[in-house]
Amino acid sequence: MSLINTEVKPFKAQAYQNGKFIEISDANLKGKWSVLIFMPAAFTFNCPTEIEDAAEHYGEFQKAGAEVYIVTTDTHFSHKVWHETSQAVGKAQFALVGDPTHQLTKAFDVHIEEEGLALRGTFIVNPEGIIKTMEVHDNAIARDVTETVRKLKAAQYVAAHPNEVCPAKWKEGEKTLAPSIDLVGKI
Amino acid sequence: MSLINTEVKPFKAQAYQNGKFIEISDANLKGKWSVLIFMPAAFTFNCPTEIEDAAEHYGEFQKAGAEVYIVTTDTHFSHKVWHETSQAVGKAQFALVGDPTHQLTKAFDVHIEEEGLALRGTFIVNPEGIIKTMEVHDNAIARDVTETVRKLKAAQYVAAHPNEVCPAKWKEGEKTLAPSIDLVGKI
Amino acid sequence: MSLINTEVKPFKAQAYQNGKFIEISDANLKGKWSVLIFMPAAFTFNCPTEIEDAAEHYGEFQKAGAEVYIVTTDTHFSHKVWHETSQAVGKAQFALVGDPTHQLTKAFDVHIEEEGLALRGTFIVNPEGIIKTMEVHDNAIARDVTETVRKLKAAQYVAAHPNEVCPAKWKEGEKTLAPSIDLVGKI
Amino acid sequence: MSLINTEVKPFKAQAYQNGKFIEISDANLKGKWSVLIFMPAAFTFNCPTEIEDAAEHYGEFQKAGAEVYIVTTDTHFSHKVWHETSQAVGKAQFALVGDPTHQLTKAFDVHIEEEGLALRGTFIVNPEGIIKTMEVHDNAIARDVTETVRKLKAAQYVAAHPNEVCPAKWKEGEKTLAPSIDLVGKI
Amino acid sequence: MSLINTEVKPFKAQAYQNGKFIEISDANLKGKWSVLIFMPAAFTFNCPTEIEDAAEHYGEFQKAGAEVYIVTTDTHFSHKVWHETSQAVGKAQFALVGDPTHQLTKAFDVHIEEEGLALRGTFIVNPEGIIKTMEVHDNAIARDVTETVRKLKAAQYVAAHPNEVCPAKWKEGEKTLAPSIDLVGKI
Amino acid sequence: MSLINTEVKPFKAQAYQNGKFIEISDANLKGKWSVLIFMPAAFTFNCPTEIEDAAEHYGEFQKAGAEVYIVTTDTHFSHKVWHETSQAVGKAQFALVGDPTHQLTKAFDVHIEEEGLALRGTFIVNPEGIIKTMEVHDNAIARDVTETVRKLKAAQYVAAHPNEVCPAKWKEGEKTLAPSIDLVGKI
Amino acid sequence: MSLINTEVKPFKAQAYQNGKFIEISDANLKGKWSVLIFMPAAFTFNCPTEIEDAAEHYGEFQKAGAEVYIVTTDTHFSHKVWHETSQAVGKAQFALVGDPTHQLTKAFDVHIEEEGLALRGTFIVNPEGIIKTMEVHDNAIARDVTETVRKLKAAQYVAAHPNEVCPAKWKEGEKTLAPSIDLVGKI
Amino acid sequence: MSLINTEVKPFKAQAYQNGKFIEISDANLKGKWSVLIFMPAAFTFNCPTEIEDAAEHYGEFQKAGAEVYIVTTDTHFSHKVWHETSQAVGKAQFALVGDPTHQLTKAFDVHIEEEGLALRGTFIVNPEGIIKTMEVHDNAIARDVTETVRKLKAAQYVAAHPNEVCPAKWKEGEKTLAPSIDLVGKI
Amino acid sequence: MSLINTEVKPFKAQAYQNGKFIEISDANLKGKWSVLIFMPAAFTFNCPTEIEDAAEHYGEFQKAGAEVYIVTTDTHFSHKVWHETSQAVGKAQFALVGDPTHQLTKAFDVHIEEEGLALRGTFIVNPEGIIKTMEVHDNAIARDVTETVRKLKAAQYVAAHPNEVCPAKWKEGEKTLAPSIDLVGKI
Amino acid sequence: MSLINTEVKPFKAQAYQNGKFIEISDANLKGKWSVLIFMPAAFTFNCPTEIEDAAEHYGEFQKAGAEVYIVTTDTHFSHKVWHETSQAVGKAQFALVGDPTHQLTKAFDVHIEEEGLALRGTFIVNPEGIIKTMEVHDNAIARDVTETVRKLKAAQYVAAHPNEVCPAKWKEGEKTLAPSIDLVGKI
Repeated sequence: MSLINTEVKPFKAQAYQNGKFIEISDANLKGKWSVLIFMPAAFTFNCPTEIEDAAEHYGEFQKAGAEVYIVTTDTHFSHKVWHETSQAVGKAQFALVGDPTHQLTKAFDVHIEEEGLALRGTFIVNPEGIIKTMEVHDNAIARDVTETVRKLKAAQYVAAHPNEVCPAKWKEGEKTLAPSIDLVGKI
Repeated sequence: MSLINTEVKPFKAQAYQNGKFIEISDANLKGKWSVLIFMPAAFTFNCPTEIEDAAEHYGEFQKAGAEVYIVTTDTHFSHKVWHETSQAVGKAQFALVGDPTHQLTKAFDVHIEEEGLALRGTFIVNPEGIIKTMEVHDNAIARDVTETVRKLKAAQYVAAHPNEVCPAKWKEGEKTLAPSIDLVGKI
Repeated sequence: MSLINTEVKPFKAQAYQNGKFIEISDANLKGKWSVLIFMPAAFTFNCPTEIEDAAEHYGEFQKAGAEVYIVTTDTHFSHKVWHETSQAVGKAQFALVGDPTHQLTKAFDVHIEEEGLALRGTFIVNPEGIIKTMEVHDNAIARDVTETVRKLKAAQYVAAHPNEVCPAKWKEGEKTLAPSIDLVGKI
Repeated sequence: MSLINTEVKPFKAQAYQNGKFIEISDANLKGKWSVLIFMPAAFTFNCPTEIEDAAEHYGEFQKAGAEVYIVTTDTHFSHKVWHETSQAVGKAQFALVGDPTHQLTKAFDVHIEEEGLALRGTFIVNPEGIIKTMEVHDNAIARDVTETVRKLKAAQYVAAHPNEVCPAKWKEGEKTLAPSIDLVGKI
Repeated sequence: MSLINTEVKPFKAQAYQNGKFIEISDANLKGKWSVLIFMPAAFTFNCPTEIEDAAEHYGEFQKAGAEVYIVTTDTHFSHKVWHETSQAVGKAQFALVGDPTHQLTKAFDVHIEEEGLALRGTFIVNPEGIIKTMEVHDNAIARDVTETVRKLKAAQYVAAHPNEVCPAKWKEGEKTLAPSIDLVGKI
Repeated sequence: MSLINTEVKPFKAQAYQNGKFIEISDANLKGKWSVLIFMPAAFTFNCPTEIEDAAEHYGEFQKAGAEVYIVTTDTHFSHKVWHETSQAVGKAQFALVGDPTHQLTKAFDVHIEEEGLALRGTFIVNPEGIIKTMEVHDNAIARDVTETVRKLKAAQYVAAHPNEVCPAKWKEGEKTLAPSIDLVGKI
Repeated sequence: MSLINTEVKPFKAQAYQNGKFIEISDANLKGKWSVLIFMPAAFTFNCPTEIEDAAEHYGEFQKAGAEVYIVTTDTHFSHKVWHETSQAVGKAQFALVGDPTHQLTKAFDVHIEEEGLALRGTFIVNPEGIIKTMEVHDNAIARDVTETVRKLKAAQYVAAHPNEVCPAKWKEGEKTLAPSIDLVGKI
Repeated sequence: MSLINTEVKPFKAQAYQNGKFIEISDANLKGKWSVLIFMPAAFTFNCPTEIEDAAEHYGEFQKAGAEVYIVTTDTHFSHKVWHETSQAVGKAQFALVGDPTHQLTKAFDVHIEEEGLALRGTFIVNPEGIIKTMEVHDNAIARDVTETVRKLKAAQYVAAHPNEVCPAKWKEGEKTLAPSIDLVGKI
Repeated sequence: MSLINTEVKPFKAQAYQNGKFIEISDANLKGKWSVLIFMPAAFTFNCPTEIEDAAEHYGEFQKAGAEVYIVTTDTHFSHKVWHETSQAVGKAQFALVGDPTHQLTKAFDVHIEEEGLALRGTFIVNPEGIIKTMEVHDNAIARDVTETVRKLKAAQYVAAHPNEVCPAKWKEGEKTLAPSIDLVGKI
Repeated sequence: MSLINTEVKPFKAQAYQNGKFIEISDANLKGKWSVLIFMPAAFTFNCPTEIEDAAEHYGEFQKAGAEVYIVTTDTHFSHKVWHETSQAVGKAQFALVGDPTHQLTKAFDVHIEEEGLALRGTFIVNPEGIIKTMEVHDNAIARDVTETVRKLKAAQYVAAHPNEVCPAKWKEGEKTLAPSIDLVGKI
């Protein structure tokens, strides 16, 4: 069964954020929109560029009332050191979540058994803890956060306007569709 | 287990393409890149806009040596009528694959049990039949084919250059990264 | 076990009828006689002729207090388009029920696993939801609604006259038989 | 799974026909068309009228190269006496098959467990032993052999003309349909 | 385990007796002695001679307060016709029980699976529904009701005189034995 | 399943006969007719009268080419003493078989679990080792060997004349019936 | 698990004692010491000598407050005859218990499956029904009751003096040992 | 099932004998008679008296061609110390077998689960490794080796004279019995 | 799962200590620190040296409020003799626990199945009965109690100072570390 | 079962050593002695002190022909950064093995399920891949490498001198013990 429209499973993990170690759980994902961004391993190659990309759009996410979480199977100890030693990662003001127990990578079905690492997966979760979009890549292929922002906006729009749907390549402010029997077979 | 880096399961289905009914199977996905685009139902609202979006990028896909397949749980009969009666869908020169047996929607884990319909899922499959990227949305949130093209290009680039990876928001022609021990902890 | 004299299983489905989308469930089959007519697929060959045949007898069914339901594994969206585009199907004033979940085709044992489509099956259901007659054909062999009307009348007659039975080829108004020990071995 | 398009299961039974006791098995159903007519019990009420109806159409069945078999759960001994003592049954020149072991009533899914008797079921079987049509009634509702003849003719026609289908209420000599992509959505 | 000294299992069946159809159940076997006589099939060879033999001793059974039941796997319909058409069977004033469901032949372990018929079995049942004697033959070997009467009398005698036993070939009125330790090793 | 027409199970037992201890097995039952007479216990009340009854008919059994076996769950040691100390039992020239292992009482389904003793059961076995008649009584009710002789003769007659059956109360020399279709429904 | 120090299982059996048939159960073994002596079969070779040996020591057993039980798989009927006809066995004033149900031989693990007889086993049971000593022989090797008396005395002594143990070959009246830490390693 | 007449299970253990550590296995029990004497624990109270008793009869055992083995769940290390420190145990010239793995105490069914120690059990094993007698006591009740010698002699006598049995309390040189049918019921 | 940080399983055993036999159970391990020292067998080679080593540090253990237990699979009887006969072992004032039931060796996972003996294992257990350190050797390699004392002190220190940890080769009185986020990546 | 004297399970892992990433597998542990040192996490508190302690004794290990492996559940990427950024860790010339798949922590039974980290465990493995000593601590209690060196030397000594054992607190060069029966009970 697809993860889309299922609720995030209960979890508990340690994260590094803004000079502190904090505990993150499924409870943190309730009450506001969340974007979970899984990546394979601290100190590697693509991952800092993706964190930097997320950091550059963090203002937009915050304005949209969404929180961002980076997740790897490293410890929060490694995440602190990574944040301190990488200029790119150092830009992250959001939580870098450690998942050495593999709870999260398994719950979001992005675990690579033979490596103990995560695939590149992005999940948009609504304030009820329901997964609305997912995107998973082979680790050699990085993502584009601009597209994640577009999806978040679309997800928020249709949540707020339950009688409308966002058409292909919809961007904030563009026209939407209001499904009705009259449109059936007419588009 | 994630579908990423697994092989497409065997299947057989009837499709409508360019005025003909043809049979499509997993054998068709071997030897070139494929993009499978699942959507819920013929004659509905968002779907024609997404097919139109795909049709407008079909030249790019073809130039990249990739084939496009639209899949719904409707029959190929419905797909023919849809193609004839919808101006948007009529632009499709690629196959509209019928999946009334639910073989494909279940194999790609996009089946909605209580509706008998597919979620909006896009899958890029390499010439060996291995899934390299996946993207699945709640049906109210449409996709943007531009991003699918970008991912296809990145997937093709790293397939051709196995010692490089594409960084965040990489676009064709941009710089890539060559992982090496020297870069560990330095980006 | 035969379906004859068993109760219709619970189901819920979307249908197109007279310009509206409506929900049909097992509850709709209670309180009056029902005739369920399964057929393989919208937009195909024999099906419109069978719907037309049903439409031409719809007055008789209504006079007999019976409702007619056409069922295919297509969606109600396809059914609306079919109704609009086929002159024959357009005559249908009864519900065209979509069964993309295969609930009904499986409950009435007319599902073709390898095609995802229904066999041609007709079922007469009494006001208690009990199946009284069934008739199923290979899809190349169409039915004759005149015979369905004859069966409905016979089913209604014996329901109303529990001590009588309808003999071979009985038609409304003809003589019936009242079983009694005296007749045993005498006919 | 529906019995339609499945092969008749192996069986062996004793029958009375034309003053002789003969053994009938699944082998007898191979090489020509067969019509199996199940009914509840010898010496009862509707059954003789149905046998008489079949007897009156026996010439047509023979001309069409089809054999007729009446089946009840009585013994062949009872069938002989029935044939001798009932004027209606005495017209039968075809086999009256005894099924006291319930092999046939169970194989054709017309067995009533709490009575040990058959439902009224008619099955048309092709020369390969494949069931092409089935019709089953509550025992108070008798059949009309005219309709069985019509179905047999249609089944034989489409067997002989594999590219055609018989439309609704088709009768021998009438026009058929030749399915082609051009007709899809056009009828 | 032997059926001797076990209770008759619950059953319900239709019988023909004296021009009427009646229902017989295990309740009928309570409160008086019963003799159940199974035989293979109505209208056959030995069976009428055995029924006639039973009919000729029916007075004795009745004087002894015992009821007689003939059981075959035929229907009560066949039993009526048999009674009417056979001079021998026509003498029967006791019930001819139909067992087309095979409930009784299986409960008394006289069912022939490959024929669907009963073996020749005679069972004497006491007023508590407990089986006291049983006798079963291959169907080619008929019974002698005189011996059944002798056994019934012996069964009734020891039921009435719990401290006595009937010696070999005891007949009503002859001497019995009163077991006691003094007789042990002395007879 | 009834024991009638099944083969005797393999067994091995010690017996006392004519001043010797001998071993009896299923092999002894092959090649001639056998009569097995089970009874509860040596030194008791009815049993000597039944052995005496058998002894008085032993000549007839021998003339008919049949062997007699008495079986109890006692040892062959007890049987020797019984034979020596009881005048009635002392008449037995046939084998007194000991069954302390309960092999035989269980194989012939005459074992009383809570007593470790046999019921009064008589079995006629043909030269192929197949059981043709059985008769079992509550232990207070003794048998009549005259009837056993009559059954043996009938069993032997129909074995020798496979197209005939022995009617009710048939005795050696009396008329038999030759089943044929002409007799069906005529007796 | 050893039977030593386990409780005797519930049982019920018929015995012959002093001209009477009595019922013996596990309840009889409670409240006084018991000696159970199993042997293979009445009327055989060693068994009478062992019963005679027990009879000659019966006075000692009684003086010690112990009861003796002989057990074979024969019936109590055989035991009566044995007692009457064997001079040796006739000396027995204790119960000769019949175990044709094999309850006792199985509960005391002395049953020989392929013979249905007991091994030579002697068991001393205390007034709580707990087995304190056991001794079992191949049937060709008889026991010596003198040793059984010695064991009984020892068992009774240590039961009465819980802080003492009887050393090797202890006989009534001899010195015992009082275990204490001081003796550890000193004997 | 009783251990009598079963073969000793395979085992391997360390023993102390005559100043040496040796390995003892089931192979050692083949080819001559063996006496296995289990006892609870080295350094305790009764055990040395029993070993001394065995030691005093060791000449007789050897003359009879039998070997003696003492077994406890202690180690062979403890056995050496015991032999050196106890005057009584020091007399033992036979093997003191250590069974800390509990292989032997479990195979001979003398293990006390809650103590990890053996019961007092003596077993006579023939040269084929078959157990012929067993004797097991509660640990407070010691054995008498004189009786073990008597049993060994009887076991050897009947092994050498298969047509004779040793009567009650038989001692070497006394009369035996030769079972024959003539003796049945005569002793 | 590791035994570290699990609770000691319930057990009960007999021990020798200071001239007395006492019972030791898991209850004894609660309320103070415990050191369990397993070794293979009494009277052997390395074991006395290890007991002597423990005895020489017993004062330190006592000062630290810890109790010492030696455990082997021998009995407490052997332990007494060992204590009396070995000068080294005789120094032990702590309990020598006997484990002939193998409860403890199995609960602490130091049992050698094929020998019935323990491995050399040392376990430090806190006053809640939780195992904090474990150390297990092949039996040829002895331990050094000095190191056990060091570990006990470290375990007690961190129990008393939950915010500190003892660094490598820490000895009582040396500096410890207080983990804090500031130290992460800085040592 | 204890891990002592079992073979290391097959594994494969990535490690950082001397500026290179290398693959380590069970094959690396064959042919020389190995010391595996598990610790919880890179960048933490005690771990660097333990690595430093190991580094300071690395010369001794190498002289003894032994290789050292540090293992945590971090990646080899983290290990490189740790080595570069920590002065203590930077002293390590041996492999820092990453175990993000948890293969090693589970195979050596030091995995903490709820943290995804290792316990502090040290294992000495011989050139055949057999574990000879193990030592596991709660993570707050660090080890002392001096003791590990002592154990390694003892393990190597007894491997080279199979007839000797190392007594308590043995250090290289000290006297060993040669087990012999003469020493049993004498130390």
